[in-house]
Amino acid sequence: MIQKLPKAVRQLVEKFERLPGIGPKSAQRLVFYLLHNPQHELAEFAERLVALHRDTKTCSICHYVAESDPCPICEDQNRDTSQLCVVEQPLDVMAIERSDRYHGRYHVLHGAISPLNNIGPDQLYLRDILKRLGEVSELIIATNPTMEGEATALYLTELIKKSSQIDQDLLKITRIGHGLPVGADIEYADGVTLARALDGRRAM
Amino acid sequence: MIQKLPKAVRQLVEKFERLPGIGPKSAQRLVFYLLHNPQHELAEFAERLVALHRDTKTCSICHYVAESDPCPICEDQNRDTSQLCVVEQPLDVMAIERSDRYHGRYHVLHGAISPLNNIGPDQLYLRDILKRLGEVSELIIATNPTMEGEATALYLTELIKKSSQIDQDLLKITRIGHGLPVGADIEYADGVTLARALDGRRAM
Repeated sequence: MIQKLPKAVRQLVEKFERLPGIGPKSAQRLVFYLLHNPQHELAEFAERLVALHRDTKTCSICHYVAESDPCPICEDQNRDTSQLCVVEQPLDVMAIERSDRYHGRYHVLHGAISPLNNIGPDQLYLRDILKRLGEVSELIIATNPTMEGEATALYLTELIKKSSQIDQDLLKITRIGHGLPVGADIEYADGVTLARALDGRRAM
Repeated sequence: MIQKLPKAVRQLVEKFERLPGIGPKSAQRLVFYLLHNPQHELAEFAERLVALHRDTKTCSICHYVAESDPCPICEDQNRDTSQLCVVEQPLDVMAIERSDRYHGRYHVLHGAISPLNNIGPDQLYLRDILKRLGEVSELIIATNPTMEGEATALYLTELIKKSSQIDQDLLKITRIGHGLPVGADIEYADGVTLARALDGRRAM
């Protein structure tokens, strides 16, 4: 008879398995590692999981994740308000900030259009970009150079070009330069590559 | 100015970073993935972390992790009590059970001797094996074929051979066979494995 793992172990393994990049074997390893941790360590881990939503806010302007709403970037008066950079994820903001080449504001979509995963434009913070374009002279679309990111960039461009409220002559839409290898992830790019990519942006 | 992640995010990232095989970048990814999960999912995850120790027991006989003490293997009267198999981790018990070739009992050390990590014989469930050898005629040492596993196997053998309470003539100590894994390719096998495989050759 095959031995079963204790229920408490199996239930925690299940939770770890659902995380991206963690398979059943790694999940088991993590749980058995945690079994060797003292209870107060696990309690602290648990507390931080619960605190994650409680102690973070999604900025109501740009949807970046921060401790305050509006976030420090939206509140910073020294930022160039004529530039707006659209990214998929909060971590992309961090990555672009590290390049030190961009000093405008951001708009975080929280994903990209992906019909396979049932993510359409309405599941993203896409349409509310239109309200933010008043004093913007350049919109830089910095979604990932993947199928989903490209589709999102095209959709957004169409959305803006069709809008009658926006003065098309005053707004330039650009795409972040393809210094990034196709298929890569903005989150993992180094600062120099990102700086090059920002320099090489092209009109859409 | 480089943007900092919110404190709640950083603190949870720290926790994930401490897990084996998870680096700073993966930890960030996991936390941002969790940010998109609803609060009740996180609360459930937290609850299961806290329940891990509460709802599992370490068997006082073999130190396997189970829901009851003694564990189902130690309580199973159909098991062959003349064989005892020593393993490093609870997951090793599961792996050997899956082979369906062993029907004796186990002894889980919860690690291996590793001076570099400050793990000596006293940090393991090593010495209490001596008390379990009464009706055992074969002790199979199935620690990993690593430096640490081999050192542990040697230490344990010495410990038993030096013990005056044990009738050395009645107890056979064996080491689990080493060689080529099934499905492997001799061409790609490393020298040490091939040397072991040749040492362990058997008549056909």
